[in-house]
Amino acid sequence: MATNVGHGEGDLAVQSCKDQLYALTPEENIHCQHGLYFQDGQRRVDYVLTYPVKKPGGGRSSRQSTHLLTENAVARSLRRGVHSRGIHSRGEHPRHHQAQRPKDSSSLPSSPVADEDHKAFRREEFEGKLRDTGLELEKDEDTKIPGVGFVKIHAPWTILCREAEFMKLKMPTKRVRPTFSSLSLYLYKISSLVIMQPDTVDCLLQLLYEEWANYSVFYKYQPIGLVRKYFGEKIGLYFAWLGLYTQMLIPASLVGVIVFLYGCATVDDNIPSMEICHPRNNITMCPLCDRVCSYWKLSTACGTARASHLFDNPATVFFSIFMALWAAMFMEHWKRRQMRLNYEWDLTGFEDEEDHPRAEYEFRVMQKSLSKDQKSQHKVEKLNYQDRLPAYMTNIVMMLLMIGVTFAIVFGVILYRISTKAALHMSSNPTTRNHVQLTVKTTAAIINLVVILILDEVYGAVARWLTVLEVPKTDKSFEERLIFKTFILKFFNAFTPIIYIAFFRGRLVGRPGSYLYVFESYRMEECAHGGCLMELCIQLSITMLGKQLIQNNLFEIGIPKLKKLIRYIRSKQGAFQEEERQKKLQRYEADHFLEPFAGLTPEYMEMIIQFGFVTLFVASFPLAPLFALLNNIIEIRLDAKKFVTELRRPVAARAKDIGIWYNILRGVAKVAVIINAFVISFTSDFIPRMVYQYMYSPDGSMHGFVNHTLSYFNVSHFQEGKETMDPLQLGYPVEICRYKDYREPPWSTTPYEISKEFWAVLAVRLAFVIVFQNVVMLMSDVVDWLIPDIPKDISLQIHKEKILLVDLFMKEEQGKVHILESRTSAVGKENCSSGNNNNSTMAHQRSGLHTNSTNSF
Amino acid sequence: MATNVGHGEGDLAVQSCKDQLYALTPEENIHCQHGLYFQDGQRRVDYVLTYPVKKPGGGRSSRQSTHLLTENAVARSLRRGVHSRGIHSRGEHPRHHQAQRPKDSSSLPSSPVADEDHKAFRREEFEGKLRDTGLELEKDEDTKIPGVGFVKIHAPWTILCREAEFMKLKMPTKRVRPTFSSLSLYLYKISSLVIMQPDTVDCLLQLLYEEWANYSVFYKYQPIGLVRKYFGEKIGLYFAWLGLYTQMLIPASLVGVIVFLYGCATVDDNIPSMEICHPRNNITMCPLCDRVCSYWKLSTACGTARASHLFDNPATVFFSIFMALWAAMFMEHWKRRQMRLNYEWDLTGFEDEEDHPRAEYEFRVMQKSLSKDQKSQHKVEKLNYQDRLPAYMTNIVMMLLMIGVTFAIVFGVILYRISTKAALHMSSNPTTRNHVQLTVKTTAAIINLVVILILDEVYGAVARWLTVLEVPKTDKSFEERLIFKTFILKFFNAFTPIIYIAFFRGRLVGRPGSYLYVFESYRMEECAHGGCLMELCIQLSITMLGKQLIQNNLFEIGIPKLKKLIRYIRSKQGAFQEEERQKKLQRYEADHFLEPFAGLTPEYMEMIIQFGFVTLFVASFPLAPLFALLNNIIEIRLDAKKFVTELRRPVAARAKDIGIWYNILRGVAKVAVIINAFVISFTSDFIPRMVYQYMYSPDGSMHGFVNHTLSYFNVSHFQEGKETMDPLQLGYPVEICRYKDYREPPWSTTPYEISKEFWAVLAVRLAFVIVFQNVVMLMSDVVDWLIPDIPKDISLQIHKEKILLVDLFMKEEQGKVHILESRTSAVGKENCSSGNNNNSTMAHQRSGLHTNSTNSF
Repeated sequence: MATNVGHGEGDLAVQSCKDQLYALTPEENIHCQHGLYFQDGQRRVDYVLTYPVKKPGGGRSSRQSTHLLTENAVARSLRRGVHSRGIHSRGEHPRHHQAQRPKDSSSLPSSPVADEDHKAFRREEFEGKLRDTGLELEKDEDTKIPGVGFVKIHAPWTILCREAEFMKLKMPTKRVRPTFSSLSLYLYKISSLVIMQPDTVDCLLQLLYEEWANYSVFYKYQPIGLVRKYFGEKIGLYFAWLGLYTQMLIPASLVGVIVFLYGCATVDDNIPSMEICHPRNNITMCPLCDRVCSYWKLSTACGTARASHLFDNPATVFFSIFMALWAAMFMEHWKRRQMRLNYEWDLTGFEDEEDHPRAEYEFRVMQKSLSKDQKSQHKVEKLNYQDRLPAYMTNIVMMLLMIGVTFAIVFGVILYRISTKAALHMSSNPTTRNHVQLTVKTTAAIINLVVILILDEVYGAVARWLTVLEVPKTDKSFEERLIFKTFILKFFNAFTPIIYIAFFRGRLVGRPGSYLYVFESYRMEECAHGGCLMELCIQLSITMLGKQLIQNNLFEIGIPKLKKLIRYIRSKQGAFQEEERQKKLQRYEADHFLEPFAGLTPEYMEMIIQFGFVTLFVASFPLAPLFALLNNIIEIRLDAKKFVTELRRPVAARAKDIGIWYNILRGVAKVAVIINAFVISFTSDFIPRMVYQYMYSPDGSMHGFVNHTLSYFNVSHFQEGKETMDPLQLGYPVEICRYKDYREPPWSTTPYEISKEFWAVLAVRLAFVIVFQNVVMLMSDVVDWLIPDIPKDISLQIHKEKILLVDLFMKEEQGKVHILESRTSAVGKENCSSGNNNNSTMAHQRSGLHTNSTNSF
Repeated sequence: MATNVGHGEGDLAVQSCKDQLYALTPEENIHCQHGLYFQDGQRRVDYVLTYPVKKPGGGRSSRQSTHLLTENAVARSLRRGVHSRGIHSRGEHPRHHQAQRPKDSSSLPSSPVADEDHKAFRREEFEGKLRDTGLELEKDEDTKIPGVGFVKIHAPWTILCREAEFMKLKMPTKRVRPTFSSLSLYLYKISSLVIMQPDTVDCLLQLLYEEWANYSVFYKYQPIGLVRKYFGEKIGLYFAWLGLYTQMLIPASLVGVIVFLYGCATVDDNIPSMEICHPRNNITMCPLCDRVCSYWKLSTACGTARASHLFDNPATVFFSIFMALWAAMFMEHWKRRQMRLNYEWDLTGFEDEEDHPRAEYEFRVMQKSLSKDQKSQHKVEKLNYQDRLPAYMTNIVMMLLMIGVTFAIVFGVILYRISTKAALHMSSNPTTRNHVQLTVKTTAAIINLVVILILDEVYGAVARWLTVLEVPKTDKSFEERLIFKTFILKFFNAFTPIIYIAFFRGRLVGRPGSYLYVFESYRMEECAHGGCLMELCIQLSITMLGKQLIQNNLFEIGIPKLKKLIRYIRSKQGAFQEEERQKKLQRYEADHFLEPFAGLTPEYMEMIIQFGFVTLFVASFPLAPLFALLNNIIEIRLDAKKFVTELRRPVAARAKDIGIWYNILRGVAKVAVIINAFVISFTSDFIPRMVYQYMYSPDGSMHGFVNHTLSYFNVSHFQEGKETMDPLQLGYPVEICRYKDYREPPWSTTPYEISKEFWAVLAVRLAFVIVFQNVVMLMSDVVDWLIPDIPKDISLQIHKEKILLVDLFMKEEQGKVHILESRTSAVGKENCSSGNNNNSTMAHQRSGLHTNSTNSF
């Protein structure tokens, strides 16, 4: 195993491995030769299964619960296992594979009295089925790990050949035609059928370890070809996608940084914040709450106003549009990259294997047909809508409930903030107040983060449970439904607090003298002067960075290590010299302590949520792409390390695309457009500024904007018991105070009503949303249309292959016509000219053609 | 030809033809036998070319201008002609085919001194090339039509077989694999290679004439299979699409009629129109223009208000949403239908033929390489961006110019309306005024219609000219660019006046006392009381109905008949007994008088523009689907008649889909969503009514709505010279008059400014647009996602064929493994177990497999 290769000798080994791999010459390199064989020393071990020996309650190896399911699962297990083997791993280093078993077999009604003997019987039956298909088995119960038995499997050459043929049948049919096998030998890319030399496999792993799962090569492209060779197409596509995403983040973060720097550079020229900060503009503001709060000076909000400008300036609008187009561009580039990989990996003709029904589904169908049989005669073959209705209803209810839980928790955090603030307002010391206010904001954001992290795990489990309940027909459908549900839940979980801050906070706050209250005593939250964008930005950065740091480092590295440790300790019985023993362990015994591969879903999910952070609220946080980029540079190598050293080698799976993830990405990109439109027009002060400048400003400048956004309040209009307790805190009596809102002044005929300006600004905001959304959608469509889905060189290549095929055909044709003419002159021509040729003639013609073509082999 | 078959004897003939066609037994039916043969009476005529004899200036037959182009075009012409023949028309009735010639050869630099001899030489060269490919030719210059020579072509059986094989090579490769030819015989659907019996062809035409091109079968499904058999897949797909569209229009028009009836039924309960019509509500309205107009009573607008309700009620909102979903559903259904047809017509594996560069393109490249050769050595192979820039620029400029022309003409019509109205206001008789007002509206709409019809023809020509200028590389690209440009121009042409009425009319009119004027004396148009929806509706119905009636009846039936007549008269020299001669004409001679087939573009274009009328402004005209349905029921049979009797039989072309038209349809459907959103929120009074009901109404009802929408004007505020000349026309002096707008009253601090209500209504309108657009888009996506692209039975069928294939393979495999084992035990197994099998072993294995499979034939 790669971890055992010391770095000193590794360098030399890597070089020789490279020679082997790239030159593909069968050199004898004794260094790389670590084969594992059966007792006879002849047959290589291709696959290892484990089971518990004389130790009750080993859930992992309880393979099936009923006889019916066993047969089914054996067939599937074999088909899959051998498929991947046949392609990738003949004679390779047999790392410990995750045993094929129906997922979630625990949910099946399993007999509690199923004792050891019964299990052993079923195991033997299973092994018998494996032998029947031609595989060769060797048991190894006498291992150095107590309580674990191993079954080593060898797939003989003929079996591999049969399976390879079987794959060929499904795969290359697009580029090849029946009477044309001789040509197909030239054109059919043999790469996917090259059966690997045993020596190269260890080298491959070593190479991956050196050139891929290594932080020091972070600036290099990933060796995707090698990754695919060792882990299969599905994992290869994931890393290719991650690589492209990271690559695409470079321009995005560059532009993001420029936008941020533009904000920094122009902060001193920003008239509104200048007006707020100017000591001459001594605007007296109304109390922010009833009774306990007092009047305050607008100039104390100077800091926030200046900071807001960093994220709330005209460049952000440009950046949102840029990022929407960036997302469209990313999609297009991924389509192209995928197409290229499909071509290079020879998957163009590959179609998804017909999925067999899952064991759980067949069990349900069987149950149903048993209960129905008594009534009607015809056999039940599938579950209909009625059977599924309860599960669907449970799904909908539970999903809504879970989303409700998310909302409730977000609301709880809001209450925490409100109540702490209310308590703070009671305190007398103003300096403490300011300091503690920041603390409250930060702690609230951290609480949010922790809740998100915990709920993320809970929701993952809930989604799985709900999907099991649904009994989807095939594995593919199971995976898609699971992913969809998990995504919905995690998406809401990650973005609900952010959406609250962006669109709801500070909207329904009332006005001085009639503030809105929740639970009678807590005022609704307001945003600091300068808009909620600042707070949105804080929340976003904490959530994004925290999620990345904690989930990556703690969960992705820490937990597997911990689990490995636990599994190791568990199997350690008594005081045994562990290190000594470790050295004597066979590779597959040592690999037993590794974590099994749990699918790519968590990896994709993490990245999609990050994609959400990068695109959804990018208008408020232009540095998001940069953070994502930094995270991903580490993430790639981290995932690589995990796959190479921390996980049992997964069974290689073929895939043509990234499946449902692409659709989810498209969905996120679509939602991003509308959310950014709303962030710019409603969360930022961009539109009010525009409206002031072009509709109300006397000289077309921004001077007077701050004054324009502040409404007037006559303190004598405070109701009984709502006036401030400390009216002279500023040192002078206040008659008229100001507050941030568009409302009629006290001297109007309808005092404190929403003013005309409010509606005008609202209309412009909404108009901006419409224009922004449609323009960006149109531009995305144009990008989609401008960038062809198939790279030019690939389509040229395909075209060339086609021409080659046609040319060869034409040449063959020349000869064939003459033969045909001589053969058919007696029968065919008569028929032709008399215009009476029928199908039998055609058949004759055909067989003539075939005889001819078969002769030409 | 079908037209010659009398109806009396036709019925019997149709029955016997049916028997022949459906049973496919080679019955000897003397009645249907009208073969045309070469002089030897043996070889059938498959294809006829025409050229002018001894008559200078016959542009149609001047095939090529330069030697280089000739060769190219010959190859293409032959390939195409023979392809379609090989499939469809062996021994068929040789209707007069449109000669293959490079399109727009007139645009090529053609030598004016090219005399007859030169042409004859080139013709001979061309014929030589045809003979070289194996075709047999017979000249017939001694025809009964003076000045026209015919070249009859016979494609011998061997040529047809070769071409059929060639097609097979490109087509069925998806379902067949190399070592598997024996199975492919079963699975490969032979239908597409069935070579038609000569007798059935006449029958087919007769059947089409009876069962398809016949108004009396309008309620039946079209015999698409027969259409495809006779005209090829491309035309078959058009009629299938037209059929599905018509079919889908049935539910749409049903719902539309219900919505309209709902409007009719509720017109008496409509409070706003009741308020307007009630004699007690004697609201005095301000003059509609300065000086010459006088005050008027709101109750005179009673009729318009009631009529408006028919098209402006809550049901319209529902109907718009319904139609947006209908459009999405239509798309999905078409995808499914297309998939089904692809399967039934065995096109699943068919890929678009590699398009050869057009002659014009190669000519340009040659020109360029000639001019470059003097400077550099390497050969020029394509036109780069620089070469194309002038053409692109011309295109953009011309397109903008044409759109500008459309705008200018629309503006001209507006001016006509404004000026006539102004003149009318001068007249003293109020009854004339009212009557003439209606006349003006109608004449303006008719002028618009006529302009649209004329410009449609002009724009078609302009688009073609622009596309020729662009020199697209391939025929496909030429067609796509042409269609795209034509669509853009015709779309603007058809919809600009409608968009003006919907969104611009009555928006910028000023207010009493300061009306806006164009050209100093003409007031901007206003809509009648009750919104512009009514006028939009009138304009829509006139344009749609007029366009359909005139373009269908006049252009599609009249013009071809006229052209045929002209061609007939032209060739008639002196007083000859025409009828006698007519009877003696060969079929191909008679067909010479038919119109050549000009492509499907006009047919599709007409339907797409109609689709635009049905979806784009459906909110204002719920009867549009009904009109479209009625039109299409006729249109199908009309087109069918035209194809069967009026046009020379087109060369059959293969196609898998309707190409760019699908994208255009999608685009129209997308635009429809946003336009309907705007029509509902801005053109109709739906939003003001809602806003009144929920924000301003004292009792939550619509009572008082009319009053709320009318602003006040103090007549003493009329500027000098703007007050009405006849202030006492109503019989009493007026102090305060009302006008429809949301403006401040005279007694406010800012009189006649836009009021808060205006901004509130505007904000709600915009919010409605956002909600409507996003909800409808989401629902369309859901429809898209819910309806699978491949019909279940088709996918099951494909699945079954796959299983059959796999099962057969598995059976063959059983035997093969044993043979393999015995063969490879010596070589393969050693290699396998030693882990050193390399490619040469693989090759050995392979050849072993092949030997085996060839043996099994």
